[in-house]
Amino acid sequence: EHPLFLIAGPCVIETEQLALDTAGTLKEITGALGMPFIYKSSFDKANRSSHTSYRGPGIEEGLRILAEVKSQIGVPVLTDVHEDTPLQEVASVVDVLQTPAFLCRQTNFIQNVANMGKPVNIKKGQFLAPWDMKHVSAKALATGNRHIMVCERGVSFGYNNLVSDMRSLTIMRETGCPVVYDATHSVQLPGGQGTASGGQREFVPALARAAVAVGISGLFMETHPEPDRALSDGPNSWPLDRMKALLELLSTLDRTVKASPLL
Amino acid sequence: EHPLFLIAGPCVIETEQLALDTAGTLKEITGALGMPFIYKSSFDKANRSSHTSYRGPGIEEGLRILAEVKSQIGVPVLTDVHEDTPLQEVASVVDVLQTPAFLCRQTNFIQNVANMGKPVNIKKGQFLAPWDMKHVSAKALATGNRHIMVCERGVSFGYNNLVSDMRSLTIMRETGCPVVYDATHSVQLPGGQGTASGGQREFVPALARAAVAVGISGLFMETHPEPDRALSDGPNSWPLDRMKALLELLSTLDRTVKASPLL
Amino acid sequence: EHPLFLIAGPCVIETEQLALDTAGTLKEITGALGMPFIYKSSFDKANRSSHTSYRGPGIEEGLRILAEVKSQIGVPVLTDVHEDTPLQEVASVVDVLQTPAFLCRQTNFIQNVANMGKPVNIKKGQFLAPWDMKHVSAKALATGNRHIMVCERGVSFGYNNLVSDMRSLTIMRETGCPVVYDATHSVQLPGGQGTASGGQREFVPALARAAVAVGISGLFMETHPEPDRALSDGPNSWPLDRMKALLELLSTLDRTVKASPLL
Amino acid sequence: EHPLFLIAGPCVIETEQLALDTAGTLKEITGALGMPFIYKSSFDKANRSSHTSYRGPGIEEGLRILAEVKSQIGVPVLTDVHEDTPLQEVASVVDVLQTPAFLCRQTNFIQNVANMGKPVNIKKGQFLAPWDMKHVSAKALATGNRHIMVCERGVSFGYNNLVSDMRSLTIMRETGCPVVYDATHSVQLPGGQGTASGGQREFVPALARAAVAVGISGLFMETHPEPDRALSDGPNSWPLDRMKALLELLSTLDRTVKASPLL
Repeated sequence: EHPLFLIAGPCVIETEQLALDTAGTLKEITGALGMPFIYKSSFDKANRSSHTSYRGPGIEEGLRILAEVKSQIGVPVLTDVHEDTPLQEVASVVDVLQTPAFLCRQTNFIQNVANMGKPVNIKKGQFLAPWDMKHVSAKALATGNRHIMVCERGVSFGYNNLVSDMRSLTIMRETGCPVVYDATHSVQLPGGQGTASGGQREFVPALARAAVAVGISGLFMETHPEPDRALSDGPNSWPLDRMKALLELLSTLDRTVKASPLL
Repeated sequence: EHPLFLIAGPCVIETEQLALDTAGTLKEITGALGMPFIYKSSFDKANRSSHTSYRGPGIEEGLRILAEVKSQIGVPVLTDVHEDTPLQEVASVVDVLQTPAFLCRQTNFIQNVANMGKPVNIKKGQFLAPWDMKHVSAKALATGNRHIMVCERGVSFGYNNLVSDMRSLTIMRETGCPVVYDATHSVQLPGGQGTASGGQREFVPALARAAVAVGISGLFMETHPEPDRALSDGPNSWPLDRMKALLELLSTLDRTVKASPLL
Repeated sequence: EHPLFLIAGPCVIETEQLALDTAGTLKEITGALGMPFIYKSSFDKANRSSHTSYRGPGIEEGLRILAEVKSQIGVPVLTDVHEDTPLQEVASVVDVLQTPAFLCRQTNFIQNVANMGKPVNIKKGQFLAPWDMKHVSAKALATGNRHIMVCERGVSFGYNNLVSDMRSLTIMRETGCPVVYDATHSVQLPGGQGTASGGQREFVPALARAAVAVGISGLFMETHPEPDRALSDGPNSWPLDRMKALLELLSTLDRTVKASPLL
Repeated sequence: EHPLFLIAGPCVIETEQLALDTAGTLKEITGALGMPFIYKSSFDKANRSSHTSYRGPGIEEGLRILAEVKSQIGVPVLTDVHEDTPLQEVASVVDVLQTPAFLCRQTNFIQNVANMGKPVNIKKGQFLAPWDMKHVSAKALATGNRHIMVCERGVSFGYNNLVSDMRSLTIMRETGCPVVYDATHSVQLPGGQGTASGGQREFVPALARAAVAVGISGLFMETHPEPDRALSDGPNSWPLDRMKALLELLSTLDRTVKASPLL
């Protein structure tokens, strides 16, 4: 078993300086823990609750900043793509592509993204049973791309609420793909603030600990130096200055669990 | 209050003859009831559970057949579009565009479809609270298109199951848009047959009666002369030869309810 | 098919005058509609959210008032019983016994109540699948009592919310017992007011119309002349002065649906 | 923070020898880990899905066996009580009383049990939000009994399924009472075998690891030397011969998490 890897960064790209600072801090923390790290940030939030919310700097400026993170900080970068994203352009810059939960059933889209040949992190729909991710990953694997990851980010539980079914992390291993747990979108309250999604940041450590104890390949987290001022998904982002303590504990749990024959 | 209108037809376009026959039968039934009728069929099922399922005849042949239905039978036609659909091409043939439930949060897509200027039936996501449809419809209405409909088709209820929350039909009226109930997708068991969705056809009449009694503008139903041999969504399609009896009862219920000041 | 019967009254017994007035009004309305009527009220609310809430007048005074309703107004009466209720004492006064949803799986209790020989209305647990009510009704029927009714009152849907799955009204017919729909507890928001349950009275007519259109034997509703001043379950009670209009419409829907071979 | 304690044993009392053997084995395992241990078994299963299922040896023989476990093995014992249980009789033998999930809202019952003065483990209803357990524990604490525990055992998630919302373990700490996680009933499939509940034993270790990593005071597990031959709840029982490996890992996780300031 490999050690836990981390995908983390601010939800949306805000400024170049914020991107570089966040990536630098996270590289330092994860480096000390021997934890592989991939920087994440979005250039366009295509599915905000309301059409008046901030969507990001756009593709050109967004990719420029991600390229700077990659070259100046020296870490691989991930971003999410949508149906109308110019995939070649994005794939020429980023190291990992990510597909949104709402789009996990769009066959052409999943296959187009997988066809870029880059590793892909496929988020499981909030409406999907964990065993149905094998059909989703099969669509991606059918392109010949062998670097497919599957990611749990909570499942619909009544209205404006998600629940993380920890059984799903075990079930999704049957896809043969590395399983990632998204600890920050899992605490979203979809639509919970009227024109935006709310979030329960306070539950991030508990759910992250739980998922790592179940046994996962990777952890996804959105983080921000000042979550309450973040331009997207602040309510469910984890403060950057509290990442070190959390990741240290998670790294210990990960090693403990992966050393056990029970996993 | 206007009388209940019907959107109906086979899930996917199979053959021209099947399309014409089905449309003709439905026109006859609804005509006798004074029930406005829109013919529905898809040319490409872009989000099948498995990538090996039948997807349809494709756009060219599909639009040709829809145009024949329109001209030969003399009924308006509806089809569903996806993010990579050439919208202009489809809009040049069909009378009503429909957006899939999974895509209800894709801002660009919803606005691109609304921008075609045609009436649009927006299906509510299986993961969305009914009050959040006002943000979705607001995105569409912001384009200036005033012919937006909102459609309930069941909400996630545990795994591989949907429930029709009849409160949602009342709540969605607050969008100011006509509310449509999809009585056949609401009985789907998503992923319930392993590599395909199952369905509980036997509950269609009960749920359709319930929705009409709550008070709706339109009813959506998939129907097929031989549901067990349908190439898509057979398990939840209602047999064509049982449409007449069902629609007669629904029409009576609709008139009764709409005559009451309680609605 | 028999015409729809009504079980209705204030949630908890408040005063004798209120009981007589409410029963009288309801008898008059239902009599004009040819709708059989059973008066309902509780003498002790044994499962309030908080232990500081009003629980009722107690068994002695409660039964005295129910006996007055019966003799002065001339209608059968129903009350709910709990595990520590002296069943013989209650059964000597009331015509129908009712068991609470939370207790539907308590084998001894269900059988003890059925053994009283009176008709029993068994409420389905908020945690129970509709097909599992056949095991519950089988426990009651095993006592030899043939007058068992099964009652839907909503199923858990996330936290502090219930949803009425209208399929359940059809599924529960397989018990062979008359199916009752509880239109007012189904709009409860359990625990939704902190120390008490909230409710969405505004959805009562829509859900009642839906259930009657699906086809039920009986309808259960809590009603009060001044719901906002009711001592229990006010938020989900339907105003007494609006019962007539609602019942007239429901009676028409019931006759329409039961005349159809589709039911 | 105290180390994790364990409540474990076969669901229902089968024979004296089985009880003694199981208790002895568990005492040995937990002793080596410094893990406080309470033996659990039921003398009467009062809420089986079907009235034809095995219910247990009855109170007299059941208490006799529990007393033997206590004296011969030297461990405290716990059993569950119901509304018609003679509480004094049970409390004169057992060390901890447990109340069933279905009965968590029965005010008199909860208070009667708490009035015995023994520690009480209150299981949270499958229909209850975690924040509503503060009203339940308040009822018990109002009796003056300060030894109240609250226990998560899964929440209704669609039909015949439960989900363990790990957030609830954090939320229930606000009751001020020790939080227990029931790792075996949480994998039940209620009603999932038709006339009995099914279970997913294979998920017990993953959910137990998750709960311990979130941080809990105690863990509840049903175990049996031969789960497939158990007379109750076999499908969700964990094999006795696999307890040692699991508890060793859980003990390590517990110490790791409780040493962290993040908990």
